This record gives sequence, structure tokens and C-alpha cells, in this order.
Amino acid sequence: MLYPQLDTPCVLIDEAILEANIRGFQAYCDEQGLRVRPHIKTHKLPWVARKQLDAGAIGITCQKVGEAEVFAAAGFDDILISYNIIGAAKLARLLALAGQVRTLAVVADSEAVLQGLSATFEGTGKTLDVLVECDTGAGRCGVQSPEQAAQLAQLVARLPGLRLRGLMTYPAAYSEAVVQQWFSRAAALCEQQGLALEVFSSGGTPSMWHAHEAPIVNEYRIGTYVYQDRSQVAAGACEADCALTVLTTVVSVPVAGRVIVDAGSKALTSDLLGQDGYGQVVGYPQARVIGLSEEHGVLDFSACSQAPLVAERLRIIPNHACPVSNLFDEVHFCRDGEFRRTEAVLARGKVT
Amino acid sequence: MLYPQLDTPCVLIDEAILEANIRGFQAYCDEQGLRVRPHIKTHKLPWVARKQLDAGAIGITCQKVGEAEVFAAAGFDDILISYNIIGAAKLARLLALAGQVRTLAVVADSEAVLQGLSATFEGTGKTLDVLVECDTGAGRCGVQSPEQAAQLAQLVARLPGLRLRGLMTYPAAYSEAVVQQWFSRAAALCEQQGLALEVFSSGGTPSMWHAHEAPIVNEYRIGTYVYQDRSQVAAGACEADCALTVLTTVVSVPVAGRVIVDAGSKALTSDLLGQDGYGQVVGYPQARVIGLSEEHGVLDFSACSQAPLVAERLRIIPNHACPVSNLFDEVHFCRDGEFRRTEAVLARGKVT
Repeated sequence: MLYPQLDTPCVLIDEAILEANIRGFQAYCDEQGLRVRPHIKTHKLPWVARKQLDAGAIGITCQKVGEAEVFAAAGFDDILISYNIIGAAKLARLLALAGQVRTLAVVADSEAVLQGLSATFEGTGKTLDVLVECDTGAGRCGVQSPEQAAQLAQLVARLPGLRLRGLMTYPAAYSEAVVQQWFSRAAALCEQQGLALEVFSSGGTPSMWHAHEAPIVNEYRIGTYVYQDRSQVAAGACEADCALTVLTTVVSVPVAGRVIVDAGSKALTSDLLGQDGYGQVVGYPQARVIGLSEEHGVLDFSACSQAPLVAERLRIIPNHACPVSNLFDEVHFCRDGEFRRTEAVLARGKVT
Repeated sequence: MLYPQLDTPCVLIDEAILEANIRGFQAYCDEQGLRVRPHIKTHKLPWVARKQLDAGAIGITCQKVGEAEVFAAAGFDDILISYNIIGAAKLARLLALAGQVRTLAVVADSEAVLQGLSATFEGTGKTLDVLVECDTGAGRCGVQSPEQAAQLAQLVARLPGLRLRGLMTYPAAYSEAVVQQWFSRAAALCEQQGLALEVFSSGGTPSMWHAHEAPIVNEYRIGTYVYQDRSQVAAGACEADCALTVLTTVVSVPVAGRVIVDAGSKALTSDLLGQDGYGQVVGYPQARVIGLSEEHGVLDFSACSQAPLVAERLRIIPNHACPVSNLFDEVHFCRDGEFRRTEAVLARGKVT
């Protein structure tokens, strides 16, 4: 039986693959002169982030104030929160956080967000670093043009309590040429206004090996690469270097070919990300994860020459690793097929 | 601003709707002579389950030993775990649980599962109640025919440490006629073998108001009805009686019509359940939740005459309430638009 020490469903992280994933991208970025600022959303674990910094990362990226609080408490002192921080409660926590770390930066894409940040930091003796978020085509947050970026950068520079650090984008995959052009134009406009930009931050795992095609970018935010997952294999970001798998037990084989496991959407999530089915069963390339309810996974083994029996254990590579981390209070590290250690997912469920 | 005491994203439960949902189905079942055994998967909250019992429910249903442990500790003493319990760790916890509650029952759909249960309870002086799980068409777990059900019931009756209680099915929606026929045939076969069946358990929210169409069923397991959600509105199980909404803040309006909120898949889940988009924005019937990343919801307001501004708050009805409960450490109760109380989701994240 696989990992008899562990009850299922649970999350396994292969340390050797994890370390190779960290080393591989760091080596690529070192060659390109690109700073790595890993996004902790994927693992939510100081223990993994420490490995990323040890390998050469310059700091971390969080999406939530609550995540940054966990990592600040764990000793991380250079944090970018790549999110518009809004509302009195979060702003008060942001100010407190600024007193605990060496460098704290956020992003902003509107005057409304900047006014809140400035009002919070003005007169406190603390200065908050701000990057202007730019929508270079992904269609999420961000100012819509280099002209708007330069205008908002001007406002950051003027507002008390804030310091202009640079530009940030969460780009569409494989849009490095667009990012290069967009950032270059915005930088030129800022320069005309006498504004210096130090950081040009882009990111994303799918086109991670194309980062050098936008040479203006000098910081790269990247999350999923550390574990990888089925959607990234499909995107070509990795081959089969998935460190995270869900260990699951067959609970029923009600009819030949239909295998029910104890990993449902509460373990694998319903994320499809363009994939067929909800994951890939390790060792059974023909098996399909055709349905999930919260506590049941329905697997189709009809195309396989062999199917597992009740009580057998399987490992499933999820479509998307990051939300899986958010579903488990702890994850288990292994090496060479042997259990090594358990870590609490300290920044799990930090919704605010 | 909606609920200024609360930071977003967070879960709001309207107490008046919650109580009406509980009362409404209990009244229907009382009329039909049907016992209600609510499934706690939807709320994972002893405080809500207590309301269900106060209204007339006879006990609760859990899917996980870990959920049952939480509810046993909170004083619930009649628990059905509607899941095949497999493996030494879970079986040991099941045995311990049996010492803490008045009535503990599980389901089983194979000899392998029954042998594990019997080996655990044999000679302990405790007896475990077992219902035979029947696949009446939903295609998940369960024996495949009334004949197999009778055969497995015979085995339950023979195995030491176990007591045959009855039959259980998680049916396809609107298949009451099938359940009636299936259970009746299995009951007749059992009777021929001298086996008495006390409980005929079915369930499910989508066709909850059709439960009386399978009169052999005397216990109904039901989860989602307590909160309701967008998929149940679509299924006709309710009109607009959704007690659970996600309170969210607009963090960006980068371009007219595109509204970005802080409720992403980490708040709403990626569950579609056949719906168009990931939820329904309260008060904006024309708005569509067209995309989710973990911390961003992308809303299309282009068909609306008005769109909210940055920092405004919205409420979103999720497609599926149950997995939303599992993403939050706490939920907030309100009444008449006013905040009332916060409760920890005590059985959140109980994966084993």
C-alpha cells in the first residue's frame, strides 16, 4: 500500500521534484538576469518559500494581507502584495505589516485605491512602495494603456506616504512581445515626466520559459511552477514534473471499469482549466476522472487493461495545484516514495 | 456600505431564510410521515444542525468520520456516516466514535468494506448499524441490483459486530419511481430470507418536493436545502430562498462594464453544475460572473444600466453552497440586513 502512515485523501509533495522545479527556473532566471519573486499562493507554506529564497529568490509575492501576515511572522521581510488593498480593516493591517518587514509593496490600478493607501500611510513615518498594475491583455485588473499607467504613476509620486516603485502586470500567457512594448511605452512616458521606474514585474507559469522575450521585465512572479500540475503539463511549462499529487483510496468498484475514490471536489477542486476530466491518475494513463462530487471521485477505467480493487491507493495529479493547497490543513512531504514530514499549510484559507 | 463590520470576501447566512428553509421541508416531511436526517456537509456547523433537530429532524448525516467526530463532540448522538469506511485509521476512529454516541450507522456496498467493519467491531461489545448502499441510477457507489442488495444484507446479518438496519441510496434527481421499485424488490428479497429492514433512506435537494413519490422511503438525507443555491433555483427546488451569499468588494473597474471583485474561486469555487457563469449577483439580474481566478471574480456588467464603483460591496449567490462552506473558517449570520453573529465552521476541512 502506498504511504501506509497517511490516511486519505491527503496531499503528497515530492521533495526531489519540488527542489528540481525551484532550481530549474532559478537557474534560467539567473542566466537572464531576472529576479524571481515566487507567489506563495501555490503552496501557502513558509517551509517551501524558504527553499525558494535559499535558491536565490529575492522575496515573495502574496495575494492577501492575511497571507503576508503569516509569512511576515515566519520571518520573510520582502513582500509584494499583488492586489488592490481596499477598506479600513485591510488598510490598518497593511500599515501594521509595514512595521514588521523590511520592504512592503502593493499594486494599484485606480485613484480610488491610491487615495486609500495614501490616507493610511500619510504622516505615519512609513512609506509604502506601489507598483502600477497594468492590463496588458489578460482582462483582469489593471490600467488599460501606457498613457493611463504614466498618469497613475504620476499620482503615486505625488501622494504622501507612497513611493513609486514600478509597473506590474499579470499577462496573458505567451504575450511577452506585448508586455515588452507596453512596458517600454509606459516607461518612456514616465521618463518624460521625470519619474524613475525601478521594477518591471511580470509573471505566470504557462509561459515561464519565455520570460526572456520581454527583456524590460526584471522581476518575475511565479507560483504554480513549484509544484506544477496537469494544466501546466498541457501548456508545455513542464513535462511530468508534478510535485503535488493527491493520495486517494478506492472506496468502491460497483461495476467493472467504474472506480470510486475518496478524492472528490473537496480534494481535487472542480477546476478544469481546459482539461478533459478532473485530474490524471498516476500509472494509469488511460484512466479518466470523469466526475466529482464533494467526497467522491468517479474514475473510468474501462480503457485500462487492469483496474484497482477496493482499498487500493492511487495518486492523482490535479488539474490545478494551487486551490488544492487551500483545501488541506496540512500536506505531506515525501522523497523516493517514502514519507518524510508533515507541514501545516499555514496560509491556507486567508481570505482577507 | 453593506455589512461594514465585516471584511470581504466572507460568507453571509440569512437566518430568516435559513429557518424558513428548515421549517418548510420539515413540514412537508411531517405531512408525509418521512423522517428527516439532514446532511451536515452543506453547513458543517453544529449551530445550524441544532436548528434542524429542534425543527424535528431525527439525527444527522455526515460523509466523513472527522465530521462525525466534530458533531459527536458537540452533543449530537444519532449519526449516519453515508460512506464506505475503509482502512485501519478510520476504522479505529469509527470504533471510538461508537462509544460516544447513542446511534452510529454507516453504509457499505461491498464485502471488502463489510469485512473491515466487522473485524473492527467484533468482540468489542459494540454493534455498528449498517445500511446497504444501492446504486439506483446515479452511477456513484452502491450495489447494482436488488438481488445484490439482498445478498449483501444477508452478509451484514451474518457478520459479527454488525447489525442490518436497511437500505440507502443517493438517487438520480427525479427518479422516485425507480427508487420505489428498486427498494421494494430488494425488501421483498430480504423478507424471503427472513431479514427485516427498518430504514429505507434516500435523499437529495433537487427533487426534495417529490420525496413522497417513493413511499417506501422513510428517511430523507438532505443537505443543500438549508442554504439553497443558484443550481437549486435552476432545478426548481426553491424560488429565490438562498440563505447563503458571498459578500464581496469591487476592487477594480478597469474598463466600463468589467467589474473585478475580491471573490474568486477561493470564495465561490469553480463548480458550475450546469450553470452559465459562477454565480448570481444579488440586485443585478443582468450581471454575469464570467471568470474566476483564485482571488478575482470577473463580472460582466455590460448589459446592466448601472455598474458598481470601486470599494462598493456586492452579494453573490454561488452555484453550489456546500463547497463554499468548506472554504471559510467562519461564516456570519444576519437578519433583516443586519449582522448578528459569527460562527466557526467547525467541521470545515475534515477530509478523513
